[in-house]
Amino acid sequence: MNEITIVKLGGKLIEDESMLDEFLVNFSKIKSRKLLIHGGGNLVTEMCQKLNLDIQIKDGRRITSDKDLDVATMILAGSINKKLVSKLHFLKLNSIGLSGADANLIKAVKRPVRDIDYGKVGDVKEINSVFLKNLIENKYVPVICSITHDGNGQLLNTNADTIASEIAISLTNTYKVNLIYSYERNGVLENVDDDRSTIIKLYKNNFTNYINLKVISNGMIPKLKNSFYALEKGVQSVKVTGKSITSSDEKYTIITNDKY
Amino acid sequence: MNEITIVKLGGKLIEDESMLDEFLVNFSKIKSRKLLIHGGGNLVTEMCQKLNLDIQIKDGRRITSDKDLDVATMILAGSINKKLVSKLHFLKLNSIGLSGADANLIKAVKRPVRDIDYGKVGDVKEINSVFLKNLIENKYVPVICSITHDGNGQLLNTNADTIASEIAISLTNTYKVNLIYSYERNGVLENVDDDRSTIIKLYKNNFTNYINLKVISNGMIPKLKNSFYALEKGVQSVKVTGKSITSSDEKYTIITNDKY
Repeated sequence: MNEITIVKLGGKLIEDESMLDEFLVNFSKIKSRKLLIHGGGNLVTEMCQKLNLDIQIKDGRRITSDKDLDVATMILAGSINKKLVSKLHFLKLNSIGLSGADANLIKAVKRPVRDIDYGKVGDVKEINSVFLKNLIENKYVPVICSITHDGNGQLLNTNADTIASEIAISLTNTYKVNLIYSYERNGVLENVDDDRSTIIKLYKNNFTNYINLKVISNGMIPKLKNSFYALEKGVQSVKVTGKSITSSDEKYTIITNDKY
Repeated sequence: MNEITIVKLGGKLIEDESMLDEFLVNFSKIKSRKLLIHGGGNLVTEMCQKLNLDIQIKDGRRITSDKDLDVATMILAGSINKKLVSKLHFLKLNSIGLSGADANLIKAVKRPVRDIDYGKVGDVKEINSVFLKNLIENKYVPVICSITHDGNGQLLNTNADTIASEIAISLTNTYKVNLIYSYERNGVLENVDDDRSTIIKLYKNNFTNYINLKVISNGMIPKLKNSFYALEKGVQSVKVTGKSITSSDEKYTIITNDKY
């Protein structure tokens, strides 16, 4: 089986042009087949603020109004996605930018309303992995943003970390899949104020402890839940890294389902 | 040779949801291979205004600053392109949205500075028709926005009418190409205030007369120049139509290089 490296680009790496360029050079050096998935960092929120849209947060979860969705689509599928694609072409990678609507790549369902109506938020239902493999085997580098659709004409906003793990899982029948979550810090940190406090190996049974101790909190929790889930479903390796991605210039965290 | 119908969607058809839906239903009924190209109507300008960006016009030509380009990319490659793609999937067309940067579809060069520096505006240099044909023969419907790139990491804003004619020309070796410019009016009008005044057949030698008489003006001039150029270069037919596209529900204009 051939290897594929799936990199999720997130956080401030997207917002800071010089960090982004460094990240992309490192991404271009990955020798295996590869694929890039991105969210929007804070750029969606910033644009909502510029446009005077009220931001609704409930239990730490963003409620996505129709207008929020339109902004997310503009920023994610528009400015960020195309910027990444054009920069990767400069680095000699034949990249192609996609949302989940394109070629029906990611079908999603609007999150069912229980206590909260999250609005135009989609939970992943199906990945069109046939289409993806075809691109990959024809030497394209897919660059995928976290906008999905329901197949009935409705776009949906979906968590980019979840998309990364779902795409990784969907490719395990064909490739040995390595999944990497990259952001501006050196992996998962024991002390959020200290970049040297990287947890070198995160075991599943320690994860709950870290949550209880509030060492791991906020957006890192779903990211890691996605990581453990991907490992369970056959993904070969999962890491959380900084902009170095696969090089050893910075410390990073290996996620493992092994017991400590 | 198989036929292909290339439709450029423009003007208020993009801005008005119900007209757009009608247009898309008509588009979905076209039986030949097909491809959709779109600009942004006034939506780019509106977003620039919302974001308080100064709009610079010189000799009727928009100067594209870096910020304008970012807005154009958001609106064209983001919100409009993905809305069209998701709506077409609902109509059972397996559409895929693309900018000129994706898969190096449209390479452009920044317009050379002579009297005016147009900013981040690109003139089309090369169409990756091999990639397009591959998609089309695999039953995808490409939906292409008018953002291009220079291959060196720079996105560029390009006239969508020109992109439509250049793509049409690039496919003449493989298909009988029919090019249609659709917008909210019934073709080219003799009196801009009267939708019934459609010029049924526009001959090349009459075109100059119409310009001199100011019957044809503004954005219609480059659109028609692109039309005559496409015919010269082997495109089988060019029409300017309303939202009916190929049906005879509305009057439309046939462009011809024949002499009157």
